[in-house]
Amino acid sequence: MRRWNGWGDDTIDVPLGPEALGFLGERIGPGTAPRDATFDAACAALPPGRLPPHPLVDASAPTRLLHALGQSLPDWLRLRHGRVHAAPDGVGYPECSEQVRTLLAYAAANGADVIPYGGGTSVAGHLGVHDPSRPTLSIDMRRMRAMISLDREAQLATFCAGVAGPDLEAQLRAHGYTLGHFPQSFEYSTLGGWVVTRSSGQQSLRYGRIEGLFAGGRVETPAGTLEIPTFPASSAGVDVREMVLGSEGRLGILTHATVRISRLPQHEAFHAVFFPDWERAVAAVRELAQAKLALSMLRLSNAVETTTMLTLAGHPRVVRLLEGWLALRGSGNGKCMLMIGASGEKAQAVPAIKAALALARRHRGVHVGRGLGERWRRNRFRSVYLRNAAWAHGYAIDTVETAVDWPRVTHAMEGIERAAAQALQAQGEKVHAYTHLSHLYPQGASVYSTFVFRLTGEFEADMLRWRQLKDRVSEAIVAAGGTISHQHGVGVDHAPWLAEEKGELGMKAMAALFRQFDPDGRMNPGKLLAP
Amino acid sequence: MRRWNGWGDDTIDVPLGPEALGFLGERIGPGTAPRDATFDAACAALPPGRLPPHPLVDASAPTRLLHALGQSLPDWLRLRHGRVHAAPDGVGYPECSEQVRTLLAYAAANGADVIPYGGGTSVAGHLGVHDPSRPTLSIDMRRMRAMISLDREAQLATFCAGVAGPDLEAQLRAHGYTLGHFPQSFEYSTLGGWVVTRSSGQQSLRYGRIEGLFAGGRVETPAGTLEIPTFPASSAGVDVREMVLGSEGRLGILTHATVRISRLPQHEAFHAVFFPDWERAVAAVRELAQAKLALSMLRLSNAVETTTMLTLAGHPRVVRLLEGWLALRGSGNGKCMLMIGASGEKAQAVPAIKAALALARRHRGVHVGRGLGERWRRNRFRSVYLRNAAWAHGYAIDTVETAVDWPRVTHAMEGIERAAAQALQAQGEKVHAYTHLSHLYPQGASVYSTFVFRLTGEFEADMLRWRQLKDRVSEAIVAAGGTISHQHGVGVDHAPWLAEEKGELGMKAMAALFRQFDPDGRMNPGKLLAP
Repeated sequence: MRRWNGWGDDTIDVPLGPEALGFLGERIGPGTAPRDATFDAACAALPPGRLPPHPLVDASAPTRLLHALGQSLPDWLRLRHGRVHAAPDGVGYPECSEQVRTLLAYAAANGADVIPYGGGTSVAGHLGVHDPSRPTLSIDMRRMRAMISLDREAQLATFCAGVAGPDLEAQLRAHGYTLGHFPQSFEYSTLGGWVVTRSSGQQSLRYGRIEGLFAGGRVETPAGTLEIPTFPASSAGVDVREMVLGSEGRLGILTHATVRISRLPQHEAFHAVFFPDWERAVAAVRELAQAKLALSMLRLSNAVETTTMLTLAGHPRVVRLLEGWLALRGSGNGKCMLMIGASGEKAQAVPAIKAALALARRHRGVHVGRGLGERWRRNRFRSVYLRNAAWAHGYAIDTVETAVDWPRVTHAMEGIERAAAQALQAQGEKVHAYTHLSHLYPQGASVYSTFVFRLTGEFEADMLRWRQLKDRVSEAIVAAGGTISHQHGVGVDHAPWLAEEKGELGMKAMAALFRQFDPDGRMNPGKLLAP
Repeated sequence: MRRWNGWGDDTIDVPLGPEALGFLGERIGPGTAPRDATFDAACAALPPGRLPPHPLVDASAPTRLLHALGQSLPDWLRLRHGRVHAAPDGVGYPECSEQVRTLLAYAAANGADVIPYGGGTSVAGHLGVHDPSRPTLSIDMRRMRAMISLDREAQLATFCAGVAGPDLEAQLRAHGYTLGHFPQSFEYSTLGGWVVTRSSGQQSLRYGRIEGLFAGGRVETPAGTLEIPTFPASSAGVDVREMVLGSEGRLGILTHATVRISRLPQHEAFHAVFFPDWERAVAAVRELAQAKLALSMLRLSNAVETTTMLTLAGHPRVVRLLEGWLALRGSGNGKCMLMIGASGEKAQAVPAIKAALALARRHRGVHVGRGLGERWRRNRFRSVYLRNAAWAHGYAIDTVETAVDWPRVTHAMEGIERAAAQALQAQGEKVHAYTHLSHLYPQGASVYSTFVFRLTGEFEADMLRWRQLKDRVSEAIVAAGGTISHQHGVGVDHAPWLAEEKGELGMKAMAALFRQFDPDGRMNPGKLLAP
């Protein structure tokens, strides 16, 4: 069963071994596990729902609690401590567009705000109730999960937008196709959620971001139904798809999405390469990204992340052997790990890997084969379970991510890590920060930083730690010229920094757009655009 | 010097040889050359300008006439016949953003509409005066043509947006870079024009459409200055770049654009392949587009276009030899020509061509080497000069283009050609129609049809012929599920069919967006959104 106050399925545990605990203890001190509230206690603390009964709406306390929050660190703190300040008054479960329209009308008739709910995996606060003084209806899209049509000729598939990653891929795989969109939240996040938060998958180098995969669809809005037809490309005015991408529920609910699919890759391989230092590694990956090779993934860890990952892997003897061998080849302390993936026709993928490894070698990259790469592939959706294990030992793990042009990549990374290291200094607390470049483009890269810090076990104190950390690193992102999010969206957590990149006119234009579809401001208020 | 009532430089003539004239005469009858009005007569016919003098504004009749219209067929008819129904009251020549703001303020102070003017190459009626009862200021951006910065690391270059294709490429080439954006209007069309009409270049298969090349910039709008910073990618809300792309001057004037550039290709080659028939050719190009090979161009002519191009090439002896040889190899009547281009590193381009030719062979494609490809490359911006020569012989050449998903490609092509063939039947006139797929995508293709019909020499009669033809083929595009434009934009000529694809809500959303930037509706009114 899915955990109600942590990540993922409760039969899956990814433990922190003694080496990992030792490693963290050395760096930031031993953690103290806080005490969790029970599910029943959290339910009991909810105020009663205020919406009238409706056959499509479940207003029971457990259901309301399970839709109250997402997976951000403040969401976790609220859930773990049973401090859920507000929950939707009811949860609608539509099974078709017409029922979505029915639920929107029901919300309007009852003066309720609407929060579209997909996989519940938001890490930016997309799912919380905005104004507890008003009733709120959550609309859970997960019963709308079928593939409706498959067009082999155009390589298009139309899905109900509540379909989660594994169900989407399973339905495509049965016919020999894949979407190829694998965000870390893949197990739970939905197609609709990917579109409205402009998500990016781990193999976007081959398959593209969701912006490129989303070809059209249907959005139910308070002003009516928006149908977006599919074209391979168009110059006919402003692209309506782009009004939906990144709209975060503010203009309606995406009920159907047609996506551009690919044939299942004939061949797929992930290789690991180690560089002696960050400078050489960055020079290599920039050259790789700009060479436009037919790769599917490039993922570069900085030195601290490389060490952290090797330690957390939990095989100290193997890691020692590997590190000894790498040191002999010139990659000792300061070494950085690059994961290179290629997928597709063997005739294209194999030469692309060969060319990439040759290029890496020119930057003193040492190829260690496919073992680590395969391990990464197997565990690609497992590493996020470490958040649960760390919490149990009194450690919080949080992440931020941005994207910047190449001249600012290292600067952004250093700025973010420095800001994190200093954020809790006043309290005498250390933050263990490390970074990888998760998505590489000819123009620049996404910079994805992870922070580990100790929990106090007190709700207010831990919320304050998160707030201080979040503010400092977000300021550092903006100062480095980065976007406030490359792949997680804005929600409420990133909203204070959005105007910095959109400008006053851009913010007003977004608001005008949303108002056109949602004149009463009922759709996910408070998210994306700060009120 | 540039022709005032035709295409291009008046020292360049691409004549129609006797074979070509014989070919057209056989198909639609002999043409009669109409008599052109003189430049002076057309100037004299303009009503006097109504705007007060301004140091940045030229209100002379010749300048006003030269900015009155674009390159659509109705624009040509008006110019050729000296029937320019309205011209801007003055033409502003800004040299910096501040002067653009000055000119916008001057227009506002004088109650004038504003028409942004780039290269004047619109074929969809973007440049005409909307309401002759109100004063209109044209803002000619061509003095803003410098490259302002070049970021080799991020492969970004910032230009003043009035820069035309050759000047842009020359400034980049000096540093070893290219944008790689080559629409047929390349000689004159500008970066700003490309962005606001969502243009596509001949080698978009490698370099992408302008949507992918445009990374950010500055727009001067009546509501203020919109600055769009550059990121490699972002999930932070709705993409502001996408509000500008396809906006056709409705929200302001793009003064600066930062574009994603590439290193000049080490290797570039164009190969020609002939298929025995359309069905085999389409099957091959779809497979090619979906194979994601590192090609830069795929351009497939249907049988009539193939014959027309070979005939118009004007080397009857060589063509006869080629056709004889092709017939022996199985490509006789009904043969279709495919142009395959590859650009980039030799190590990627050469194997890509090899793979493409092998794939073509499996569909009975016959490779005829690089001769025809090189000829196409040399003449890529010359074929449009045929419009001048045809006119002189009493023939009008017009084109339409759309994009559709693969299952509808052949259907769309046939529908458009059939509609064209029937459009003038009531008058007993024939239309010679032929088609190529100009841009290929995994999802579908653009369908680009050319029509040749006879001129009567009378303005009203020829305008009627164009109108009937345009209406019928546009209806056919919509009936086939195509977008009303894949690469030329909407202007006034395509506006009646836009709502079909955008829907009522999409149209309203665009209007709301433009209103936010241009509350008084002063920017290029009447274009894109029919009033």
